[in-house]
Amino acid sequence: MGNGASQTQLYIGIDGGGTKCRATIYCPKQGVLGTGLGGPANPLHGFERTLESIMVSTQQALQDAGLSLQTVHTLVAGLGLAGVNLPNLYEQIGQWQHPFKKMYLTTDLHTACIGAHEGEDGAVIITGTGSCGFACVDNHSVSYGGHGFAQGDKGSGAWCGLEGLKAVLLDLDGLGPHTELTALFKLHFNTSSAMGIAEQMAGQPSSSYAKLARMVLGAADKGDPIAKAIVKEGALYISMMARRLLEIKPPRLSMIGGLAEPLQKWLSDDIAELITEPKQPPELGAVYFAQHSFAQEIEQVK
Amino acid sequence: MGNGASQTQLYIGIDGGGTKCRATIYCPKQGVLGTGLGGPANPLHGFERTLESIMVSTQQALQDAGLSLQTVHTLVAGLGLAGVNLPNLYEQIGQWQHPFKKMYLTTDLHTACIGAHEGEDGAVIITGTGSCGFACVDNHSVSYGGHGFAQGDKGSGAWCGLEGLKAVLLDLDGLGPHTELTALFKLHFNTSSAMGIAEQMAGQPSSSYAKLARMVLGAADKGDPIAKAIVKEGALYISMMARRLLEIKPPRLSMIGGLAEPLQKWLSDDIAELITEPKQPPELGAVYFAQHSFAQEIEQVK
Repeated sequence: MGNGASQTQLYIGIDGGGTKCRATIYCPKQGVLGTGLGGPANPLHGFERTLESIMVSTQQALQDAGLSLQTVHTLVAGLGLAGVNLPNLYEQIGQWQHPFKKMYLTTDLHTACIGAHEGEDGAVIITGTGSCGFACVDNHSVSYGGHGFAQGDKGSGAWCGLEGLKAVLLDLDGLGPHTELTALFKLHFNTSSAMGIAEQMAGQPSSSYAKLARMVLGAADKGDPIAKAIVKEGALYISMMARRLLEIKPPRLSMIGGLAEPLQKWLSDDIAELITEPKQPPELGAVYFAQHSFAQEIEQVK
Repeated sequence: MGNGASQTQLYIGIDGGGTKCRATIYCPKQGVLGTGLGGPANPLHGFERTLESIMVSTQQALQDAGLSLQTVHTLVAGLGLAGVNLPNLYEQIGQWQHPFKKMYLTTDLHTACIGAHEGEDGAVIITGTGSCGFACVDNHSVSYGGHGFAQGDKGSGAWCGLEGLKAVLLDLDGLGPHTELTALFKLHFNTSSAMGIAEQMAGQPSSSYAKLARMVLGAADKGDPIAKAIVKEGALYISMMARRLLEIKPPRLSMIGGLAEPLQKWLSDDIAELITEPKQPPELGAVYFAQHSFAQEIEQVK
């Protein structure tokens, strides 16, 4: 990778998801120069906010690398963003008057997969705020899920949190079975009324639901039947997604995201056994993607 | 009702829900003078929009009654609004610089119950865009549900639509069972891709999900197992809610809202048998509420 591009060209890889945005500045000769962290960067849940999070993480990475903020205009950027699997959002972000020398855009799934397998063929499942799966073999790729909260993203943090919340509200109304989650949620929201909890969650983005997942996973670990049923249903979906990804025979399968580790023990044994650690984080996948896309463009110009 | 208030005092009853807002101008001597219809009026999903819908329906009702728009300042208004079961929203609407002579605010559940039983004790279940239940016996009232989309409102139009959509997206990904809903949704959204459907529903309000419920109910009627399972689960919740409302022994139970009629045949037989037609619509309940509240205020001043 990087053939035809100068060895002094700097790259920035940006991985944007529902809760945070990570940026890494990379030099082909020296490796990682600096990293930065920004807020939510899923354009589906806020277009302006996404651009802001990208710029915050970029500026932090520049500072961390000891580079001037003006250097941004010399960077070749690779962006892997959640939400841009939706064609309209891909186009909107593509039309952004970005400050980089070049910007190459793809989904967070794609850059995660490139990172996890260092550019080689493989499959990834992301279970963070949302959930989705991606596999790439011999330049043929497939993807599943990633349809957004609340209609999709089963097995994700936001989904776990929403299902837990639904169970608690039913319990508080006496219209559903008792669950240990109720006591946990009462404490968390500092209210004992269903309406008090509902009010605090009204209009909240998926990232707020994802914050509730920790309690659901914790209660499942302690054996609460309702929490266990939620986590098992989510894990069953992720196992099924893994099987679909394996249909195109990727040589490796990795799981990424905040729920990857806690969900692993709930997966089907045959799937759990197959899962291997990602080799590199998604933001380095975004760097590889930028390098590769830039090199291709230079080749075409020649 | 209306003791102490002049027989020439005009009242306006306003019933605001997730999809529309109805207003009725009422004269104690002549009955209904005019009606009006506005857009969505659930402050949880848009505060300014709610006030606009209230004013649109009010102005239409004034015109329909052959009254000048200035007459608004002489009306005693009763407002039954979805969403104001949340204390913060109740307070916000209460602080509105409204144009009426007097404004009395309560939940759409309360005015629906007053209307359905002409001010007598009783219970109502509303299944429209959202779902909730309310019963009032000897000045003691209880309510269940109404926790908002997507965390609550089980058995509602928005819930049915969301569950149908989830099933279709799973089917299209090959991660869930086949359902006849998929063909219906493809036609409705004019796309055969899961992502194309997901994109059109991204960020949509609950009223957009409620519009999908018709397809789910239709497929359930035709025997599609997935659609039937959704409708049955929703109806089971509504039946359980009815049983909780019956605990305080309301003499009557009515169902109101767009899903009241189509859901009825899916309810438990013991509950379906008990359901009686509402005597008056919610906007007349709001008129009674205005009359009653105004009369009480006059009494207190004396």
